[in-house]
Amino acid sequence: MSQNQMFNLLSYPSALVDHFGFTTDKTFKQRYLLADEHWKKDDGSILFYTGNEGDIVWFCNNTGFMWDVAEELKAMLVFAEHRYYGESLPFGNNSFKVSTGIPCFIELHFTGLHRSCVICKLKVCSNPVLGKSISAIFPTAFAYFVSLALAASAPIWHFGNLVPCGVFMKIVTEDFRKSGPNCSETIHNSWGAITRLARTGSGLHWLSEALHLCTPLRNSQDVQHLKGWISETWINLAMVDYPYESNFLQPLPAWPIKVVCKYLNNPSLSDAQLLQNIFQALNIYYNYSGQARCLNISETTTSNLGTQGWSYQACTEMVMPFCTNGIDDMFEPRSWNFREYSDDCFKQWGVRPRPAWITTVYGGRNISSHSNIVFSNGELDPWSGGGVTKDITDTLVAITIPEGAHHLDLRARNAFDPTTVLLARSLEVRHMKQWIRDFYCIKNIHNSLRKLNN
Amino acid sequence: MSQNQMFNLLSYPSALVDHFGFTTDKTFKQRYLLADEHWKKDDGSILFYTGNEGDIVWFCNNTGFMWDVAEELKAMLVFAEHRYYGESLPFGNNSFKVSTGIPCFIELHFTGLHRSCVICKLKVCSNPVLGKSISAIFPTAFAYFVSLALAASAPIWHFGNLVPCGVFMKIVTEDFRKSGPNCSETIHNSWGAITRLARTGSGLHWLSEALHLCTPLRNSQDVQHLKGWISETWINLAMVDYPYESNFLQPLPAWPIKVVCKYLNNPSLSDAQLLQNIFQALNIYYNYSGQARCLNISETTTSNLGTQGWSYQACTEMVMPFCTNGIDDMFEPRSWNFREYSDDCFKQWGVRPRPAWITTVYGGRNISSHSNIVFSNGELDPWSGGGVTKDITDTLVAITIPEGAHHLDLRARNAFDPTTVLLARSLEVRHMKQWIRDFYCIKNIHNSLRKLNN
Repeated sequence: MSQNQMFNLLSYPSALVDHFGFTTDKTFKQRYLLADEHWKKDDGSILFYTGNEGDIVWFCNNTGFMWDVAEELKAMLVFAEHRYYGESLPFGNNSFKVSTGIPCFIELHFTGLHRSCVICKLKVCSNPVLGKSISAIFPTAFAYFVSLALAASAPIWHFGNLVPCGVFMKIVTEDFRKSGPNCSETIHNSWGAITRLARTGSGLHWLSEALHLCTPLRNSQDVQHLKGWISETWINLAMVDYPYESNFLQPLPAWPIKVVCKYLNNPSLSDAQLLQNIFQALNIYYNYSGQARCLNISETTTSNLGTQGWSYQACTEMVMPFCTNGIDDMFEPRSWNFREYSDDCFKQWGVRPRPAWITTVYGGRNISSHSNIVFSNGELDPWSGGGVTKDITDTLVAITIPEGAHHLDLRARNAFDPTTVLLARSLEVRHMKQWIRDFYCIKNIHNSLRKLNN
Repeated sequence: MSQNQMFNLLSYPSALVDHFGFTTDKTFKQRYLLADEHWKKDDGSILFYTGNEGDIVWFCNNTGFMWDVAEELKAMLVFAEHRYYGESLPFGNNSFKVSTGIPCFIELHFTGLHRSCVICKLKVCSNPVLGKSISAIFPTAFAYFVSLALAASAPIWHFGNLVPCGVFMKIVTEDFRKSGPNCSETIHNSWGAITRLARTGSGLHWLSEALHLCTPLRNSQDVQHLKGWISETWINLAMVDYPYESNFLQPLPAWPIKVVCKYLNNPSLSDAQLLQNIFQALNIYYNYSGQARCLNISETTTSNLGTQGWSYQACTEMVMPFCTNGIDDMFEPRSWNFREYSDDCFKQWGVRPRPAWITTVYGGRNISSHSNIVFSNGELDPWSGGGVTKDITDTLVAITIPEGAHHLDLRARNAFDPTTVLLARSLEVRHMKQWIRDFYCIKNIHNSLRKLNN
């Protein structure tokens, strides 16, 4: 049964297009999914999922954890779609046609639910909320509203110079290195092979055929594009390297990197043989179902992901520096060039990113004044490089999952779950229950005092 | 010696015109006054004064407390001018010519000072900062940056329906009631007397003469204006009812309401006699120096106050409901009419106020998740009606000063200070010193742990 059938409420409340400026009072419809089957108003909780960079129904269907714990936590489930994604478009079909200059904020509208214990789940929780999946949890600005938070796979430190810009690609590489002999070396060698083959027209033609590309490569720009597309494929595999068959970014077998690496065990082959093996590997990711007739280098994931919205966010508030050096990682060297990045943003959106915005507004590494947040990270997940992986205080707790990829703990229970993710989930629930108890305990004290005073 | 001569630094760093939207990257010069004579970098503090609705030099000269405690707290003093006030105009001379729609935010730019203990002084402290003197302290959003705060005379609950809209005028009335026999009754009766006198042309003429108005009254609109101006005069007197001669809003004698009330001890006089006494009372406020040749009903305070900036703020984020009923207070009954208020704002600025903005963003009464804030209120201060006057937690502490008007505790030491304000100040300093010790204690533990780990 599809999980979204369980929703008993689909809500489209009005949200202001701009909560902070006063040039417009326009509103738009923001989508929320609600399920209150297990909700107990008096001692329950509200699990509030702050939507990612995509269609909320799709993320909802990939977040079984909320359903699995709803009864135990007597929880109402709320999935909020982030503005600029899915159906929640502030300017309708024109949302990406013009640069609006309006920040990608979302507002939580839950008047009347204030008295219940609100658990802010996932990456981001605050108002303003920054809702990038790969991003961050910041229940800080709205501490009064949010009692606790589970920040799963939240790279809150992947900003400014809080972590080295190479950490992400290093973890991707590590995932391939550990998943099969010579796997990362083979990928490392593939870039040169592509460059050499692409030097001639016939080489370009051969490459296009060998990789079964839908559109043949014509020039060096196409080749750069191809390399970027292949890199992104390896990154995506690292994110969804789950221990069972899944269908998140693409339909995939269990431990997909292991499957891919079976084709990538010999880095010393000729350029052509090596690229044929690269094709076999890519074909696992793009054609596990066997339906694809060719590979399209313009996309790497399902269309449920809102790439335009993300591009705009990354060009404004969410500036994450990335780089590679080809030594600590299996990619071609590429330094982080903010100037170039900013120019590209200006070309595309007419805006300049503000790299210090997030660290200024949310404190960067100085978050010890906050409390009641569980930060969970899978060690296979490249985003863990920007995550909180050590306890900061008694109530800012880190949980790491050695066999976990991106958001494994948030996915539905599965017979193939490794023990480490089971432990992580039970720890998460333990913290949540403890903090819910604290919430009601303090609330009861307040109520008693109020009665005594009257 | 004028206190501003003690500044060793006058700084005009660039601040973004709009920190939140991305339509413009323009900057403007924001004024800061700094004094670091007593600053000790290693164990000292930074007292950061978040500027009010006016010229920062003027407020600085009326905030002697910061100078009085600088040495004891080894403090650097920083006075930040709020945008849209004084010299800190985001659009220069055009700042009030057009409705920019840009929120009245201010940004703290103190990179490099992060490691010292920052005390956020006065009303408002956060980034965004809402800097209305009569407003609020919210070191919440920037808890990571601000270690503690003194929220002096901060009516953080004078929003939405958190307090009754009549509380402010009730306290004003109480101040007059207590300052002389029949004083508030006399004022209460004066409104009807004005109305009756203003019914005829000769009555209008007589009123203009009797009150020594610079511009004669011509119609009922002028009479309404006159009543508003007189009301505001009584309000201002309630705010600055200090126990010694002072010159804040106007040059005034000690306990000015007592002086004023000497003329207002007989509510049963004829309309004309009653208004002549009202003139004597007004003349204390507007002409203590004896220099004024006539009274100008277009102004009630020094021009250092930025009335335009405040009008815009009140028309956007800072919506404070006020009302009177003529029973619990000495004013003519006037209900709170948000619709009318909003229409007036739209007429003047082309914007509509958002009454729920502040309570949504800052939590309204739910602030118990914050810490290290002293809320001080003078019981004579009408703004105390919207203030925090009872402890909320161990680290959200309320101090009330029975003989205190607005900001008395922030003023310089004076031989005529009542004991209660001396006690309040010493309590404030005690809390600050305790929290500064806590700050350095935690910092030292962190440093030791870091050394152990390396």
